[in-house]
Amino acid sequence: MGKWLIRARILCRFPILFLLGSCVILLGAAPIAVAQSETKPNIIILFADDLGYGDLGVYGYPTIRTPHLDRMASEGMKWTQFYVAASVCTPSRAGLLTGRLPVRTGMAGKTRRVLFPNSAGGLPREELTLAEALKDQGYATACIGKWHLGHLSQYLPTEHGFDYYFGLPYSNDMHLKRRGDPPVPLLRNKQIIEQPVQQETLTARYTEEAMRFIRSHRDQPFFLYLPYTFPHVPLFASDRFLGKSPRGLYGDVVEEIDWSVGEIIELLRELNLHQNTLVVFTSDNGPWLTQGLEGGSAGLLRSGKGSTWEGGMRVPCITWWPGVIPAGTVNNALATTMDLFVSAVDLAGGRLPGGRVFDGVNLTSLFRGETKPVREVVYYYRGTELYAVRHGPWKAHFVTQEPYGGQSPEYHDPPLLYHLDRDPSEVFNVAAEHPEVLVEIRRIVDQHREHFVPVESKLEALISE
Amino acid sequence: MGKWLIRARILCRFPILFLLGSCVILLGAAPIAVAQSETKPNIIILFADDLGYGDLGVYGYPTIRTPHLDRMASEGMKWTQFYVAASVCTPSRAGLLTGRLPVRTGMAGKTRRVLFPNSAGGLPREELTLAEALKDQGYATACIGKWHLGHLSQYLPTEHGFDYYFGLPYSNDMHLKRRGDPPVPLLRNKQIIEQPVQQETLTARYTEEAMRFIRSHRDQPFFLYLPYTFPHVPLFASDRFLGKSPRGLYGDVVEEIDWSVGEIIELLRELNLHQNTLVVFTSDNGPWLTQGLEGGSAGLLRSGKGSTWEGGMRVPCITWWPGVIPAGTVNNALATTMDLFVSAVDLAGGRLPGGRVFDGVNLTSLFRGETKPVREVVYYYRGTELYAVRHGPWKAHFVTQEPYGGQSPEYHDPPLLYHLDRDPSEVFNVAAEHPEVLVEIRRIVDQHREHFVPVESKLEALISE
Repeated sequence: MGKWLIRARILCRFPILFLLGSCVILLGAAPIAVAQSETKPNIIILFADDLGYGDLGVYGYPTIRTPHLDRMASEGMKWTQFYVAASVCTPSRAGLLTGRLPVRTGMAGKTRRVLFPNSAGGLPREELTLAEALKDQGYATACIGKWHLGHLSQYLPTEHGFDYYFGLPYSNDMHLKRRGDPPVPLLRNKQIIEQPVQQETLTARYTEEAMRFIRSHRDQPFFLYLPYTFPHVPLFASDRFLGKSPRGLYGDVVEEIDWSVGEIIELLRELNLHQNTLVVFTSDNGPWLTQGLEGGSAGLLRSGKGSTWEGGMRVPCITWWPGVIPAGTVNNALATTMDLFVSAVDLAGGRLPGGRVFDGVNLTSLFRGETKPVREVVYYYRGTELYAVRHGPWKAHFVTQEPYGGQSPEYHDPPLLYHLDRDPSEVFNVAAEHPEVLVEIRRIVDQHREHFVPVESKLEALISE
Repeated sequence: MGKWLIRARILCRFPILFLLGSCVILLGAAPIAVAQSETKPNIIILFADDLGYGDLGVYGYPTIRTPHLDRMASEGMKWTQFYVAASVCTPSRAGLLTGRLPVRTGMAGKTRRVLFPNSAGGLPREELTLAEALKDQGYATACIGKWHLGHLSQYLPTEHGFDYYFGLPYSNDMHLKRRGDPPVPLLRNKQIIEQPVQQETLTARYTEEAMRFIRSHRDQPFFLYLPYTFPHVPLFASDRFLGKSPRGLYGDVVEEIDWSVGEIIELLRELNLHQNTLVVFTSDNGPWLTQGLEGGSAGLLRSGKGSTWEGGMRVPCITWWPGVIPAGTVNNALATTMDLFVSAVDLAGGRLPGGRVFDGVNLTSLFRGETKPVREVVYYYRGTELYAVRHGPWKAHFVTQEPYGGQSPEYHDPPLLYHLDRDPSEVFNVAAEHPEVLVEIRRIVDQHREHFVPVESKLEALISE
């Protein structure tokens, strides 16, 4: 107990340490390291929906065949401790596109966890999206796929820095009659072009649209954001893939996405853009386990979508950039989707604007094969509440809760503590053996909260109000 | 119910179908397909001990760094549905080295599951080992590592076709004072050269011995069987690896084995033997989960060592043979260690002897990239009892039991039924929905038992008797 207090006091003297890797606060406009090359690289983010940590061949799934993603990993970098900003759609996407935790942008709710067709809110216009930041650097921008950051006109992608939009405004299962939902629409820019959308065509049409966008911007830096509609339920695959995977329909759908990734990579080679394009493939959250065989697998990780256990927020991530990212690298550094924002802005030669907190850090040194860690802390929020914190290999759960079903949260004091590098499945709680780690994590939390300015959630308001 | 019976009757008319891929019975000496090349390829089998399905980078483990095995997979073939002949050491090794189920060779027991230092038995001399079969074809043979098929003089590797032996006679934890075990010895041929063995040196010394053997037989076909002592507990790594893996000691040990594999592959390239050598890396059974963090991970599979759930008997397997095995292939065909026996004999230009049942099938067409399945059935024995059967994607559990701890077996009627291609984690029992599958599997079992000649177990007798 005495030793415990001494250690706590020692830690108090160096509060600055706890900022490392957890957030970057810029009070004035500050430059971040400029990109290595004078040429601005193209940036492509391929974002699967509800794909689990264990669902790709290269992440260990036995019967889903993903040769293109496996090859992308063997030619690029496979990340094994890569996180999303939240365990469900809307806040996760907000984190990726703003580089900020969803609690800072109003994209985290207390009662609603995502936007619905009867939601009146969306990502606030004053937020800077990655599309806007890259547009400022001369990039052509397109969002092709599922948006889910506000479907009213003023929140659509073309209002958030995307020159072009083609896709669904929200999830493909959001057509609940008793809620008054309309059939799921397909939009081009702000126009509904199909309703209900023919879902079995979506992956192929997204791919076609993406390839058209790449071809027509081959002579200009571009940012392509391709948030696939699948493997979110209900599952649909085109005739070419339907009934083909040993894994059943879920496998058909993932194998079609794998095909899509292969088409895009192949086009980049064909157009000789591959050495000047960063391609990222990742997922918005873990697998939706309550869907049974129509949901994916978190592999060896615990729980899935909706949870702050690892299976909810650690996702597959492959980055590919021949000539820059060393081929066949497995990277176990901590990283998040919010870091992609900061990294992309840096690669484009941009600067982060002042006056706001960014939660992302710059991964570009890691892309280039350096091994010095750039992130030490990961926050696991559920809605507006902080449930768990990872610091280095340690993760403390202050609160746990079933991902779905309305059970109450369970508060832990002392928190549950896991050493994730040794125990990725979160089986062995070692809180009793490591009180000093908990002291340190509690201090990190205090520090994190000190800078927090609460904002109103935009997920609660209904159109009818 | 009517339909059910009709289907059963239809199946009765074609009993021969049920033999497909389940066993090969040769009543007289019969040739099997000769090898593609006139040159007899070298054969190397690297056999880890208790390494789980999920423990390698390329099988999805986040923090165990296995760059050499990952590269071996990207240059070769990764198998995702590869099985051992039993879920514990002795019978699993007997299956690999004889191509026969352990119940046929006396290497399966009713009370004892493996051999111990006070065991009087061993693999019967009348069994044909892979070393003997390959020696008949002019191969130099060596066993470097853990034997565990009888430690009395008449059962040692040099009595079973190996020209040379260096290693431990049984598991590295078998030095129980109350059982009267001596300290664990290290043998060269039949001589004890160190006792107790310095375990932290073992992986490095096995590697050195293996490399010496390869160098000195570079001009002659050779068979190298290298059953590593680790990651079986107690865990030891050399100074070079100790404390280096983020995964802790278990990771250190696996990373040293990965290094060892890298050294061997590199030597093959250096000696220009790589295009004439089949290298197989696999494990003897699943992870020993009751060892906590000192045991491995079965990834998404259920249970581990000692169990007939998938985690006990499905293991990582990588086959490598540049110029023959297509690079970067993921193979989800069913295969077993017993098939390696049959395949190796074929590659060496040999024939399976008559008068006995072999349970292996020939995988060489699959090595060459053909996709036509050669195996449809996998048997999951625990000791002498058949607990489960896989037929194609379906697995029926007639009996289940905790892997360790003395709980009684649980009998299932109807059996539990899982579709492993869709549900590799064995979560969704679909027996009620697919009675016709159970009829088929029951018939396979009847057929299997028809040819069975019970043999006396060699695992029960004690030295003191």
